[in-house]
Amino acid sequence: MSENGALPHRGRVLTVDTMNPNVKKVDYAVRGPIVQRALQIEKELKEGVKKPFEEVIKANIGDAHAMGQRPITFFRQVMALCSYPQLLDDNKFPEDAKNRARRILQSCGGNSIGAYTTSQGIDCVRHDVAKYIQRRDGGIPSDPDNIYLTTGASDGIVTILKLLTTGEGRTRTGVMISIPQYPLYSASIAELGAVQVNYYLNEEKCWSLDISELQRSLQAAREHCNPRVLCIINPGNPTGQVQSRQCIEDVIRFAAKENLFLMADEVYQDNVYAEGCEFHSFKKVLFEMGPEYSRKIELVSFHSTSKCYMGECGFRGGYMEVINMDQEVKAQLSKLVSVRLCPPVPGQALMDLVVNCPQPGEPSYQTFMKERTAVLSALAEKAKLTEEILNTVPGISCNPVQGAMYSFPRITLPQRAINEAKVALCHMFFMSFA
Amino acid sequence: MSENGALPHRGRVLTVDTMNPNVKKVDYAVRGPIVQRALQIEKELKEGVKKPFEEVIKANIGDAHAMGQRPITFFRQVMALCSYPQLLDDNKFPEDAKNRARRILQSCGGNSIGAYTTSQGIDCVRHDVAKYIQRRDGGIPSDPDNIYLTTGASDGIVTILKLLTTGEGRTRTGVMISIPQYPLYSASIAELGAVQVNYYLNEEKCWSLDISELQRSLQAAREHCNPRVLCIINPGNPTGQVQSRQCIEDVIRFAAKENLFLMADEVYQDNVYAEGCEFHSFKKVLFEMGPEYSRKIELVSFHSTSKCYMGECGFRGGYMEVINMDQEVKAQLSKLVSVRLCPPVPGQALMDLVVNCPQPGEPSYQTFMKERTAVLSALAEKAKLTEEILNTVPGISCNPVQGAMYSFPRITLPQRAINEAKVALCHMFFMSFA
Repeated sequence: MSENGALPHRGRVLTVDTMNPNVKKVDYAVRGPIVQRALQIEKELKEGVKKPFEEVIKANIGDAHAMGQRPITFFRQVMALCSYPQLLDDNKFPEDAKNRARRILQSCGGNSIGAYTTSQGIDCVRHDVAKYIQRRDGGIPSDPDNIYLTTGASDGIVTILKLLTTGEGRTRTGVMISIPQYPLYSASIAELGAVQVNYYLNEEKCWSLDISELQRSLQAAREHCNPRVLCIINPGNPTGQVQSRQCIEDVIRFAAKENLFLMADEVYQDNVYAEGCEFHSFKKVLFEMGPEYSRKIELVSFHSTSKCYMGECGFRGGYMEVINMDQEVKAQLSKLVSVRLCPPVPGQALMDLVVNCPQPGEPSYQTFMKERTAVLSALAEKAKLTEEILNTVPGISCNPVQGAMYSFPRITLPQRAINEAKVALCHMFFMSFA
Repeated sequence: MSENGALPHRGRVLTVDTMNPNVKKVDYAVRGPIVQRALQIEKELKEGVKKPFEEVIKANIGDAHAMGQRPITFFRQVMALCSYPQLLDDNKFPEDAKNRARRILQSCGGNSIGAYTTSQGIDCVRHDVAKYIQRRDGGIPSDPDNIYLTTGASDGIVTILKLLTTGEGRTRTGVMISIPQYPLYSASIAELGAVQVNYYLNEEKCWSLDISELQRSLQAAREHCNPRVLCIINPGNPTGQVQSRQCIEDVIRFAAKENLFLMADEVYQDNVYAEGCEFHSFKKVLFEMGPEYSRKIELVSFHSTSKCYMGECGFRGGYMEVINMDQEVKAQLSKLVSVRLCPPVPGQALMDLVVNCPQPGEPSYQTFMKERTAVLSALAEKAKLTEEILNTVPGISCNPVQGAMYSFPRITLPQRAINEAKVALCHMFFMSFA
């Protein structure tokens, strides 16, 4: 401070020039300029501005409830019971919902979902997740100690990428991701200062994955970084393909040969619509390939409450299963997740319901199955409809949507439109220099 | 792969030697070895192992519900209504609870808390937060655009530290934190690769903060890094002091003089117990110091649903208010939080109830106030009790607990105990070499 008590000239401490440079590099299209523009248009419509349309439909993200999908009654009954346990005395709630709620509450400190849980997640939920995986994968064992509950799948993916990121310059960790991509990957890679290594899905073959393309991409990346991780999204986001069992085997062999850590984003595992397509978990295929693979390949698989028939994005529930992770690294992972204390408990509870849903003979079973089937059928129908309608538009072509919640059409711009745009762009430049 | 199809010798991709070195440096005592040992003892007790005690009481973290504190009825009623809106027709719920739930649901996509929200958080919740701050701070304006909802306060703190971390070697960002500290800070600083700059609270003066110590610490740090951030926790964690208005003014003047970005962790703002102590928000003091300060000092203040009289840690609700943040940096912050899509919606809803609690004349007001007062009185009583009992133990002395949820006693070890421990340690070494 100067002698007369006035502050000296003081610039801002934090400016774009003095901030974390990795954060600046982050590009997040799902919530980027197009979304900002959509929000603006929506606001204008609300304020009465006249447009040639009345409504903005946001198709930039798989947000099922926002698009009118109804929540599964059973899930929400249990959530209400967990939130306000006085309702356990209410005879309007079915017994199986009450049992689930009681079991979750008994696992919580002070029987309250307002208490912190252990950082890895509630014990009984992790056990239920392991049982679910074991059932799903035809009996291949799953260890609750390998299950980490997360704040949505995003949280788990970022955490594992964080563990894997190291090195400087040519030794920096390279992360192989599919293009077209889900922007969480590019954003997290930029934020962590890792290197994004693109491999391209084959649009001509319905967005399938070619091992030769993986090989090309890896080779090229090795010139400038240390590619250590291969990320797979199956069913695909945003391309909607479903990988064949053969393809998954080939990917695992490739990862084995090239010493890559596998990350399998499997949040759309119930979203498979096309005839002849089936979901195969990476874990199952890995174990069916024999001990040579199942004892060696490091794999993390991610799931969440946000997609499939649940669509409960707002709860930010999820889990990851880590396989063949070095014990010391696992200890580091446990320490790392403990810094954020615990995943949101309502999300943990919801994850439990997904993996421990009503069973035949339980009072809620029929309603649950009816609702589940209705949602999945509606999604299948919409997948078909989207593909068909897009393909009727001249200049647009779209692959069959085999799974997930997205279609990724190709738009061919006519030469005349391109020429016009070029002229318009020139005018813009002239204007900006005028 | 070798020619006979066997895999070549394949080491693990991810080991402690090849993992992120910053993660390895993270040390997180709140969930560290003592907690691990406590969990083990608890397990042994469950398995019937005889011990000279029957129960483990975990006092390592402010986890009110786990310690028997009951949730606020009104909050949980609204949470149940939001989770299962069919209950809106139930006449067992008071009208004010229903109104809050309806308002929250109307702000959610598809009227469901299962939809994603905007990344900054639900619009009406951010408006309610701004109104709450304005009320709390005697009318000093708060802009909803400056409010970001978070996944607990931890999430906000890490996000802001992330923005501020830059540089290499001697230009690396230094973050000033109080010692004794809350380990979230040291852990996040290590993970981000920033430099931890310690300033010591004065135990002799009831853990108060001396500006001369801030000055000493800053001076020393400037030798080896670029200290840019000053973190304050008030009321203090884990030391329980409450800062005087004068002290806060001095800190702000210091930050102004030394060009520091201020982070004020104010999650215990309702937890003030000692006579003559009062909570003053950094924002309020800053604005009362006049435009010279209020227009310049960059400040972020954090709050959450986890502490105070709510104790709803499991919901991971929170907000931060950013003041005088550079507009371009704010855009970067908005982009950064968008990568994780949105904070958990149940936590957002709960945060809304905290800042928009029942008002005089509303049906839930009396019960709410009764419950709130009961919790805060019980905490005040326990604070007094803890201090008194600790001070009766020879060799232990403890400052008065003015606020927050912690006492931080000094333990003086008798020379004989130290000598015995040295001998025991020597024996251990002998044993390990035997």
